[in-house]
Amino acid sequence: MDKTEQAKKRAAFQAVDEVLSDRQVVGIGSGSTVVYAVERIAERVRSEDLKITCVPTSFQARELIINAGLQLSDISQHSNLDVAFDGADEVDSKLNAIKGGGGCHLQEKIVAHNAKLFIIVADFRKKSKFLCEQWKRGIPVEVLPLAYVPVMKHLKKLNGKPTLRKGVRKAGPVVTDNGNFVVDVDFGILEPDKLQTIDIAMHMIPGVIETGLFVGMADRAYFGMEDGSVVVI
Amino acid sequence: MDKTEQAKKRAAFQAVDEVLSDRQVVGIGSGSTVVYAVERIAERVRSEDLKITCVPTSFQARELIINAGLQLSDISQHSNLDVAFDGADEVDSKLNAIKGGGGCHLQEKIVAHNAKLFIIVADFRKKSKFLCEQWKRGIPVEVLPLAYVPVMKHLKKLNGKPTLRKGVRKAGPVVTDNGNFVVDVDFGILEPDKLQTIDIAMHMIPGVIETGLFVGMADRAYFGMEDGSVVVI
Repeated sequence: MDKTEQAKKRAAFQAVDEVLSDRQVVGIGSGSTVVYAVERIAERVRSEDLKITCVPTSFQARELIINAGLQLSDISQHSNLDVAFDGADEVDSKLNAIKGGGGCHLQEKIVAHNAKLFIIVADFRKKSKFLCEQWKRGIPVEVLPLAYVPVMKHLKKLNGKPTLRKGVRKAGPVVTDNGNFVVDVDFGILEPDKLQTIDIAMHMIPGVIETGLFVGMADRAYFGMEDGSVVVI
Repeated sequence: MDKTEQAKKRAAFQAVDEVLSDRQVVGIGSGSTVVYAVERIAERVRSEDLKITCVPTSFQARELIINAGLQLSDISQHSNLDVAFDGADEVDSKLNAIKGGGGCHLQEKIVAHNAKLFIIVADFRKKSKFLCEQWKRGIPVEVLPLAYVPVMKHLKKLNGKPTLRKGVRKAGPVVTDNGNFVVDVDFGILEPDKLQTIDIAMHMIPGVIETGLFVGMADRAYFGMEDGSVVVI
């Protein structure tokens, strides 16, 4: 296992060890770091006989839950979650985050928004002072397919550079778990005090379904560092 | 034809006669009044040999365009429309509107937002001083199906009374042309200066896709009155 994978695993394991307790309803994020969180949740459920109910944020998360033998539910049955564990593409010094590199940020935001604690688990590459300092692919925005042309026009008016995300192993655009497109919008480096304004402006464009800006949502972040430590913010 | 239908027809005909001109790209709204607008557009296209391209806002609008023999396009090809004609459930004295009684407000808002002129055509019953003065079914909000429970929870926190719209001739909830649910939210009577704040607050709830509040979007409204006149605001 390489350094980055080790860092992800350490961050996820420490987060689960510090936060998970019996009889919780737990949101399960998407992405490569969450795989380790689910591994650790399953280990603790088995060894400590915990009663944990899991709410997925994507098809991938749902499969992780089922394959780990954990109890699957959904947000209609459990709209108040105790905690959600999720990765991020980049996290700034105020714990604002970019998510949606994997195109799952709509369900991820719904679950995070309804969790008492939203915990980010990530490796050292995701830790920044400002958003888009290291993450150069822009803010992922989930868009109604029929509206991607006018939505991109309006994102340009907000001084963004929008790109329709293209599929790999799929001709044409990426389609999300919810049947929508993703437009990645480059606004340059984003300081924390500008995030809410730009997030609201994007939400008010008809055809925008959800943005990958998670402003003021995270309660804590666990970063696995290169030196083997875990930094908790 | 009863008084209300006559009023709808007069409003729609006068709007089309005053606004439509050659070589326009025209948004076609949804609902019962738009039927008359399309009827009049088709008459004028035939009699004056106009070159008009129509962009629909719903399955219903698409069928109206095709059945009238008009040129069909979409908003990806024409993201700058010259004019959009649409009905409304209620219009206040500042031309703010409630739409979505027919569940088509997502595409309607996309089209209206990208039209140079947005023209409302309606009968006398839709003309109010304030929104929700006469329209008692609340603000239609299009919602991701998997998120309707947490979205309704957050709409209550905004002091709304949300109801999941139930189908008629369909068991369970209404499903929109875009595959979503509709939640109708009663906030009581809404004065114009409160609309933007409440609209932004609803948009920022993860799982809300679009609201039926059209704030500051309409350029003109044609109301067919009971006495046979048409009032233009």
